[in-house]
Amino acid sequence: MCIVKSALDKLFNPESVAIVGATPKEGKVGRAILENFITKFRGRVYPVNPSYSEVLGLKCYKSISELPETPDLVVIAIPAPSVPQVLREAASRGVPAAIIISGGFRETGTPEGEKLEKELEEISRTYGIRVVGPNCIGIYDNWSGVDTFFVTKMKRPPRGYVGFISQSGAFATALMDWMAYHNLGVSRAISYGNKVDVDDVDLLEYLGEDDKTKVILMYIEGLKPGRGRQFIEVAKKVVKKKPVLVYKAGKTNRGSLAAASHTAAMTGEYSIYRAAFKQAGIIEVESFDEMMDAVRIFLHQPLMKGNRVYIVTDAGGTGVMLTDALTSVGLEVPRTPDDLKEELKKVLPPHCIMENPIDLTGDTDDERYIRVLDILIEKPYVDAIVVVALPQVPGIRGFFADHIIKLKREYNKPIVALTIGSEASIEVAKKLEENNVTVFESPERLAKALKVLYMYSTIKMRGD
Amino acid sequence: MCIVKSALDKLFNPESVAIVGATPKEGKVGRAILENFITKFRGRVYPVNPSYSEVLGLKCYKSISELPETPDLVVIAIPAPSVPQVLREAASRGVPAAIIISGGFRETGTPEGEKLEKELEEISRTYGIRVVGPNCIGIYDNWSGVDTFFVTKMKRPPRGYVGFISQSGAFATALMDWMAYHNLGVSRAISYGNKVDVDDVDLLEYLGEDDKTKVILMYIEGLKPGRGRQFIEVAKKVVKKKPVLVYKAGKTNRGSLAAASHTAAMTGEYSIYRAAFKQAGIIEVESFDEMMDAVRIFLHQPLMKGNRVYIVTDAGGTGVMLTDALTSVGLEVPRTPDDLKEELKKVLPPHCIMENPIDLTGDTDDERYIRVLDILIEKPYVDAIVVVALPQVPGIRGFFADHIIKLKREYNKPIVALTIGSEASIEVAKKLEENNVTVFESPERLAKALKVLYMYSTIKMRGD
Repeated sequence: MCIVKSALDKLFNPESVAIVGATPKEGKVGRAILENFITKFRGRVYPVNPSYSEVLGLKCYKSISELPETPDLVVIAIPAPSVPQVLREAASRGVPAAIIISGGFRETGTPEGEKLEKELEEISRTYGIRVVGPNCIGIYDNWSGVDTFFVTKMKRPPRGYVGFISQSGAFATALMDWMAYHNLGVSRAISYGNKVDVDDVDLLEYLGEDDKTKVILMYIEGLKPGRGRQFIEVAKKVVKKKPVLVYKAGKTNRGSLAAASHTAAMTGEYSIYRAAFKQAGIIEVESFDEMMDAVRIFLHQPLMKGNRVYIVTDAGGTGVMLTDALTSVGLEVPRTPDDLKEELKKVLPPHCIMENPIDLTGDTDDERYIRVLDILIEKPYVDAIVVVALPQVPGIRGFFADHIIKLKREYNKPIVALTIGSEASIEVAKKLEENNVTVFESPERLAKALKVLYMYSTIKMRGD
Repeated sequence: MCIVKSALDKLFNPESVAIVGATPKEGKVGRAILENFITKFRGRVYPVNPSYSEVLGLKCYKSISELPETPDLVVIAIPAPSVPQVLREAASRGVPAAIIISGGFRETGTPEGEKLEKELEEISRTYGIRVVGPNCIGIYDNWSGVDTFFVTKMKRPPRGYVGFISQSGAFATALMDWMAYHNLGVSRAISYGNKVDVDDVDLLEYLGEDDKTKVILMYIEGLKPGRGRQFIEVAKKVVKKKPVLVYKAGKTNRGSLAAASHTAAMTGEYSIYRAAFKQAGIIEVESFDEMMDAVRIFLHQPLMKGNRVYIVTDAGGTGVMLTDALTSVGLEVPRTPDDLKEELKKVLPPHCIMENPIDLTGDTDDERYIRVLDILIEKPYVDAIVVVALPQVPGIRGFFADHIIKLKREYNKPIVALTIGSEASIEVAKKLEENNVTVFESPERLAKALKVLYMYSTIKMRGD
C-alpha cells in the first residue's frame, strides 16, 4: 500500500547521497549543503565537482558516473544549463531520487528557462527518478539528517513531530527559525520550488504515512493543475490518522496576482479550495498566529469528546472575554448544573461565583484552583477546561500549576491556560508549556485554537 | 469648558491625600496603598486609622475631622459597613474626591450591600463629592503618583501616554503588568468598580482633555443605564483629538450572562453598542492582540493619508500572505505604476519583482532595501510602507534597519515591519521597535493594525 512511501523514501531516508556542486568555497550553496550532511547525516556522502579532488576532507568525484556506488539521492546545486545533463546521468545510472536546488528555470519567465525545466520533467518521467525542485531549498529532515536548507542563518528546530510542506522557501526558513526559538519540534520540512515532479499531494501522502509526523502543516499558493481530486482523496485518508492544517496564500484577487509573480502559481478560485479543504477534512488556518497555536494544541492536547468548555478564573472580566470568544467560535460554555453548583459550594467561599465561568475572585489562593479542578476533571460533561490564572493576585503562590500538570498527565482531557502579565505570568506559562499544558495570553486565540482542536476531533471521530 | 476636568482633577492630581484604613500590617490593602503613596506621591499623605498614632513613620489620625487640613482626596479601604459614615465625614468637611476600594456593596447581591451602596450614592449626590468605586482598585496615575492599585505583584509600566479605563480590576492589573513587560508607557489607568458616581463617560471626557494621554483604551462590560447618549456625545469630541479604542465584553448572550455574574453589568444588546461606537468614531477592537497592536501603532505611527500600502520583501510567500491580509481588511495594495517600475529597474537586478509586493528575492542585501525605500518614501501615492525582512537571508547584514529608522524620523509616513524567526529577527525587531518602527510577526495582525490606523485617520480628517 505504501507506494508513495517507498518511492519517496529515498528522498528522506537515503543511505548514500551525492552532492553535485559541492565546494569548499565559503558562502556557496554547495558548501553549506555539504556541511549540513557532514555534520548530521549518518549515511555515506559523496561530493561531486570536477574542479576538486577533495572537499572538506572528503574525496571528491568528477561526475555521478565515477561514484563507487549508485547513491540513493543526488542533490544538485550547479548552474541551470548543466542540470539536465547531470540529472540524466544520475537517472540512467539508476539513482531513484534527486533534489534540484538550482534556480534559473520556469521562474525566470524566459523561453530558455522554460525549456530547461521541460527537460527535467521529461527525464523524471522517462526514468522514474523522483525529483524535488528545481528552484527550491529542498528537504530538512530532523530524523535522517538530510538537510539541503542551505540557509546557514536559520536556527534548526529540535527533532519532533511537526511536518511542514511549503510552497515558499523563505517562509519555510523563517518558520523553522521561529519554531527553533519557540522550541517546537519538527520531523521533516519540505519546500519543493517549481515542483517539476514531487508535489504537495505526494508529500502529504508521504507525511501521512510517516510515523514521526503527528501534525502536518501546509503552506499552499496553488496546487499543480489537475491534482485537485487526488489532493482531496489523499487528504481524506491522512486526516483519519493526523490533523492536516493548511494556510492558503493567494486568497484574494490581489493576493493571487502576487502569487503569480512569486511562484508562477495558479492560485485558482479560493472558494474552490475552501470547499475542497472542507470536504477533505483539512483544517484551514487563517493567520500565522492561528497556525502556530494550532500546532501547539495538537502536539500537546488530547481530542475533545464534545464542545463543552468550563472556565476557572481569578478574574471575572477575563472570564467574560473568554466566554464571548469561545461562544463566538461555536464552542459551548454551559451553565453550571445544579448538582455541580452544590459540589462547588462545599469547597469554595460563598462570594465565589459557581456559575461557569467559575470565578474564584481576586482573593483566591492556589487551593481553590486545586479543589475546583479536582471536581471538574472527573465530570464526563466537561469536555475541556480553561484555567485563567492572572498571577498578579496576591494569594497565588504558584503550586496550582503543578497540580494542573498532574491532572493533565493523569486524565485524557484537554486543559489549557490563559495568563497575561510580566515575569510572574511568564514563569507560570513556561512551566505549564514545558509540561504540555498549552498556554495563551489572548482569549480570542485560545478560543480559536480550542475550536480547531474540536473541529479535528469531530473529523477524527467521524473517521473512526 | 473643562468642567469635568476641574471636578475630577482632584482624583488624579490632588495635593493632599488621606488614606482611611492605612495600616502597618503586611499583606493588607491599606498598607499596600499607603506604601504606594509614600514612594511616589509628591503631595502630603495622611494615614487615618483610630488604632494607630503612627504608621510607616507618618503621624496617623483617628478620623478625617482630626486632619490638620481638608485633603483633596480621600482613599477608603475599610470594611463596607463603616464606609458611608467616613464618606459623609469627608464630604461634610469639603473633601472634593474619594476613591472607595472596599468591597461588600451591590456586588454581593444582598439587600444589605445594596442599601450601603445607595447610601454612598446619596452622599455623593448631596455633597457633590466625586466618588470612584466602591469595590474597585481605583486609580494608577503615572504622572501624579496617585496609586491605589494595591496589587503589589503587579509590575508598574513606565510613565507614558496610554490611558486605560477598565470595568474589570483584574484585567486592568494584568494589562498593566503586561504593558510593563513590553515597555509600553501608561499615563493613567482607572478601574471604577460599582461606579456609584464616576463612570466611563466622565473618565473618557477627563482623559480626552488630558495632555498626557494620547491614546485611550476602554474595557467595557456595560455603560450605566441612561448614559448612552452622553457617551456618544463625549466620544465624538474626544476622537477629534485622540483615538479611542474599545474592547466590549459581554458581546454574546452567554458572555452577557457571565458579565452579569461578574459586575452585575447590564451589557445590553451588542448591536446597539456597535452602532454607538461607530457613530461616535470609537474604534472597536475585537481581541486582546488587536488592542495591544493598535496601542503600539497609535503611539508610534503618523496617520495615513490614504489606504495605499506598498510592500518591500525578501520573501515572496510572505508578500503574498500580506497582500491577502491587507486586501481582506479593506486596504489597497496597488499595482506598481509604470514610471515607478522604471525607476525600480534602475536600482534593482532584473530578477527582482518590481510589481507590488516588491520582491527583492532571497539573494538581497541591505542596499536593495535602502535603494527601494528611498524611492518609495518620496512618492505621494504611497500612504504606508511595509518592510518584510526575514533575516535568514544570507546577504542581509542588518544596517537596512538603521536606514528605516532614519526615514521614519525624517518623513511623516507610516513605516511598519514584519519579521519572523529567532535571535536575528528578534534583534532587528527590538532595534526597530525602540525607534518607533512598529514590528509584527503575523501578516494578519499587521494588516489589522494598519487598518485601525487608517480608520482613525479618516475619522480624524473628517473632524478637522
